[in-house]
Amino acid sequence: MNPELFDNLRFEQRRGGLILAVLAELRTERYGYLLRKALSNRGLEIDENTLYPLLRRLEGQGLLVSQWREEDKRNKRFYRISADGEVVLTRLIDEWETLNSSLRRIVDGESMANEYQTAIP
Amino acid sequence: MNPELFDNLRFEQRRGGLILAVLAELRTERYGYLLRKALSNRGLEIDENTLYPLLRRLEGQGLLVSQWREEDKRNKRFYRISADGEVVLTRLIDEWETLNSSLRRIVDGESMANEYQTAIP
Repeated sequence: MNPELFDNLRFEQRRGGLILAVLAELRTERYGYLLRKALSNRGLEIDENTLYPLLRRLEGQGLLVSQWREEDKRNKRFYRISADGEVVLTRLIDEWETLNSSLRRIVDGESMANEYQTAIP
Repeated sequence: MNPELFDNLRFEQRRGGLILAVLAELRTERYGYLLRKALSNRGLEIDENTLYPLLRRLEGQGLLVSQWREEDKRNKRFYRISADGEVVLTRLIDEWETLNSSLRRIVDGESMANEYQTAIP
């Protein structure tokens, strides 16, 4: 097995989750370093080369807003979620809950309790 | 807000989950149509234009194996997970559990219970 294969699949699996994580964490305004610390504090490690392009992309899509401000005599770019971002985040959380419930059933090999199970060989 | 934006983000969020779902569901051998039904039965809808390229890709990566067989007088391509796929699936499930725990804390705004919480403004 190609040793990079698992890493690529893992990255792909994490990718969607990172968007949700960044939007949710930026309901509180933070600059990049503190955002990384906040995510790490919840158990999600994300390296700078992934986080910073993602922040710029989400800002470009209008889901985040940013502002340069001085703090401790250094200029820092503070990010927070936009009004559009809040709308998207609410829907992404719903999607995530639904997807997770399905994945739980699939991983555990169970059917939906509230549906008549069609015969599957 | 660009009306396609949410759809794209939703797709991106689902994408990683679909790999996990397909590998897990194919611990039992199935052909495409029955795989879609099985996933749908667990609450995960996936259209053919997404599923079939994903099956070919995962087979190309050595995570699935397939075999043409006749059933009900029609040739059908049956897929099942490979030995490498089983190894990858186990690790992806672990990653998924860890990622989910983190996302749960992030969405709910909680810290890891077993870690000292650093001050976050």
